Amino acid sequence: MTLAFQDYYPERFSHCFGCGRSNPHGHQLKSYWNGEDTIARFTIPAMYSGGVPDNAYGGTVASLIDCHGTASAAAFASRAQGHELGGEQEPVRFVTASLTIDYLRPTPLGEEVTVTGKLISAEGRKVRVALTLSARDAVCAKGEMLAVQFGG
Amino acid sequence: MTLAFQDYYPERFSHCFGCGRSNPHGHQLKSYWNGEDTIARFTIPAMYSGGVPDNAYGGTVASLIDCHGTASAAAFASRAQGHELGGEQEPVRFVTASLTIDYLRPTPLGEEVTVTGKLISAEGRKVRVALTLSARDAVCAKGEMLAVQFGG
Repeated sequence: MTLAFQDYYPERFSHCFGCGRSNPHGHQLKSYWNGEDTIARFTIPAMYSGGVPDNAYGGTVASLIDCHGTASAAAFASRAQGHELGGEQEPVRFVTASLTIDYLRPTPLGEEVTVTGKLISAEGRKVRVALTLSARDAVCAKGEMLAVQFGG
Repeated sequence: MTLAFQDYYPERFSHCFGCGRSNPHGHQLKSYWNGEDTIARFTIPAMYSGGVPDNAYGGTVASLIDCHGTASAAAFASRAQGHELGGEQEPVRFVTASLTIDYLRPTPLGEEVTVTGKLISAEGRKVRVALTLSARDAVCAKGEMLAVQFGG
């Protein structure tokens, strides 16, 4: 079984509502390599509706993009530094410095959506990631993140 | 009792997890006038932690800014058009086209945070809003939203 990026986070950083394996109330999003890019799949529960019951609210869209983005930043940075998450080195962790999201169309509830990440640049402790959230092969939202490594 | 902007949303648009009065699972954020600007107050429950248990995860920060932003856009647009939410006209509703958030410092859980909105511009169906989320008189996150009116 392939572990997700989030499975390598140290226990003290594993409580995120969006992607922490130690948060029983949360989404527990799991992000993986997909060639040179990254991918996560998630089905948004009905309670996270927007104003109308059929579509996700903007906060959940932002949440999934944010958590997949910081996880992807850690994976991209590790690979750029010549090792991989899950190797012998302490996993690097990233926080969001800035995130821009363009909402292009409604995001459906109750069916699988796909979140992707693509490395834009990795310079020192700063990683830029381009993100999408798609459903039924149509992009619902696009994101761009500046993530910054902390600790280490 | 002063009604919040969200209290004027028609029933069919009242199901948002972030601010819908008809969503029993959600935050039910309430936004109000504060002079020429807007304000909402909220205490983030412990379950919405980030990687560490003491701080909010980025998704909740984005959620509060997003919901306060679209509510503020509706209020600003109504006033710019010479009427007020809660007047005789059908309330205008706005959706987020684009949202940028800069995360400046951790957002605490379990204590009141304040979200503010300031009108940048209102042109036709497009409203730009500057947003902040603060705790203990320090700004934790800044946002800028482009909101677009729909329907009507």
